[in-house]
Amino acid sequence: MTTDADASRNAPLLVTMGDACGIGPEIAARAAISGDLDDAVVIGDPAVLRRAAAAAGIAVVIAVIDHPSHREAVPPGALAVCVPPGLPTGLAGLPWGVVHAEAGAAAARCIECAVVAVRAGAGRAIVTAPIHKEALAAAGVKFPGHTEMLQALAADAGRGADVDGGPVDGAAAPLPAVRMMLANDELRVVLVTIHVSLRRAIDALTVDGIAETISITQDALRRAGIAAPRIAVAGLNPHAGEGGLFGDEEIVLIAPAIERARAAGIDARGPYAPDTVFMRARNASGHPGEFDAVVAMTHDHGLIPVKYLGVAEGVNVTLGLPFVRTSPDHGTAFDIAGRGLADPSSLRAALRMARRLAG
Amino acid sequence: MTTDADASRNAPLLVTMGDACGIGPEIAARAAISGDLDDAVVIGDPAVLRRAAAAAGIAVVIAVIDHPSHREAVPPGALAVCVPPGLPTGLAGLPWGVVHAEAGAAAARCIECAVVAVRAGAGRAIVTAPIHKEALAAAGVKFPGHTEMLQALAADAGRGADVDGGPVDGAAAPLPAVRMMLANDELRVVLVTIHVSLRRAIDALTVDGIAETISITQDALRRAGIAAPRIAVAGLNPHAGEGGLFGDEEIVLIAPAIERARAAGIDARGPYAPDTVFMRARNASGHPGEFDAVVAMTHDHGLIPVKYLGVAEGVNVTLGLPFVRTSPDHGTAFDIAGRGLADPSSLRAALRMARRLAG
Repeated sequence: MTTDADASRNAPLLVTMGDACGIGPEIAARAAISGDLDDAVVIGDPAVLRRAAAAAGIAVVIAVIDHPSHREAVPPGALAVCVPPGLPTGLAGLPWGVVHAEAGAAAARCIECAVVAVRAGAGRAIVTAPIHKEALAAAGVKFPGHTEMLQALAADAGRGADVDGGPVDGAAAPLPAVRMMLANDELRVVLVTIHVSLRRAIDALTVDGIAETISITQDALRRAGIAAPRIAVAGLNPHAGEGGLFGDEEIVLIAPAIERARAAGIDARGPYAPDTVFMRARNASGHPGEFDAVVAMTHDHGLIPVKYLGVAEGVNVTLGLPFVRTSPDHGTAFDIAGRGLADPSSLRAALRMARRLAG
Repeated sequence: MTTDADASRNAPLLVTMGDACGIGPEIAARAAISGDLDDAVVIGDPAVLRRAAAAAGIAVVIAVIDHPSHREAVPPGALAVCVPPGLPTGLAGLPWGVVHAEAGAAAARCIECAVVAVRAGAGRAIVTAPIHKEALAAAGVKFPGHTEMLQALAADAGRGADVDGGPVDGAAAPLPAVRMMLANDELRVVLVTIHVSLRRAIDALTVDGIAETISITQDALRRAGIAAPRIAVAGLNPHAGEGGLFGDEEIVLIAPAIERARAAGIDARGPYAPDTVFMRARNASGHPGEFDAVVAMTHDHGLIPVKYLGVAEGVNVTLGLPFVRTSPDHGTAFDIAGRGLADPSSLRAALRMARRLAG
């Protein structure tokens, strides 16, 4: 798979505004005034951003530009916006904190536009503000969330993909294998399985799936500048199965996947007991981590430790796409939208992570 | 179930010395010189304790007493020892860090003696130093670990129970329902399931088992002085099942168990998403916890967050016994036994927790 990273090294980050009725536009405005968007362009609706800034009492200059490459004409501290063609109108009149089909459709259009731009080298990476699943569904978007949409758009980029109806020109391109990484200052975790029941997650584990996760993790960490990543692989069962006494997935699935990764030159180790591997990987002041990332078999084995110290600094990264995509680790927060209460820390962390991963 | 807690309020804590070839005797000696055993009696072998202190370079006075009630005759900073009748001899000649049947038999005898003493009101609580599963097995002890042994001894106390062969007088008494609690300064977690594969843990979940765990948690927290404990119950599946989309155990098992607990007057809440409930319960400086304990469905959902910040301060508590039992959250550490490297922090934390729970 080719990447456009080299061509876009000096291009701005592309920040999709997210659901117009949620906190996305507000945290973008707040990030802009602190200078965090000086190398970024928001893909969105200027009226929505203006309304969010006003509601939150944020005095930000909003500059509409025709193309991301015009970012440098906008002064530091201002918010540069590119408006996607075909964006629904009237978004700034929608009430805060409510599911609206128009907001869902607009959020999808911004993402689609950002992918086209990043694939064309006009953006260095994509940072997505939160969208709402129900609003997407109300708009007839066939994807349940960012990850699936980005996966499909990445496969179809340049072929006239359309988020409402799949590729225009017939047969779907193969989807890139993607994985979710959650990261904060102390810990990076990559998940083998995500949004399925725990029973189905166990059923879904395969040597191929685990080995592919390790390989995707290796690629992402190398891209982030770690020459020889140390990758810990967590077990599934208590004590990593205690030699088969508490389950055999470590023996039958996880160890062979690690073996395969090692044969490919990856410094993957384990399977380690889930209850101590995250403690060992934790990289904090006075506590150097033993590993650069942990591959976890289940959603909660991986996310419990990442979130334990708080979610404000957490960043969600989609690995395996042909471009860098990060996002804050929170949702649209409809309950506090338009009230000036939203915390931009996670968006800021997502911007930092995007810069680092984009090189 | 009756308890002897009232009768024993002024009695010493009883510390079993653990495996003679591990770090138990050494951390006991270290705790003694810092005054942490001034209200405690070690149940063990003076020769083993002397050897461990010498090997670790700890100048501790060891005073052998005939009965725990003589503790007050021993000066502060000294280590008071009671020797169980029938303790194997020659233990102090065994090499460090190796599995020995004699060490396993001695460790079991100390535990048995401590239970008899605490049931007779001669001890306020039991704090167990680490034992080795293989040494127990080599000694023909039929229990895999402390918990199972204590459970059986509690059921049989006063009836001539024998760790090698079960109750002497025929039919076994019913075992008390016990649960494992792991606690540190920030978090208390009680586990519904422990040492089984993740698949079997899911199969083992029942409304009764979850409700009983909540009830045992309530009793323990009240005993620790919390008048109206706030108990969070974690879900099993990602996002606590997202309304049934990712598994139905929350709907079929966990919510009904919470309902039953609430009907019994317990402030149990949930089921909450596993990935954020521990963060919410975390009680740290500037971050007051929302709950006094979290009931977790699986070993690793519960232990990952407790261990994330390190195991030095972790304490293991067996809830549901008719007496208080705590232990450090580490093993015999055969690799460093007899070398003066063992850290007594977790034993100290276990002593503090025992004092608190014993009231």
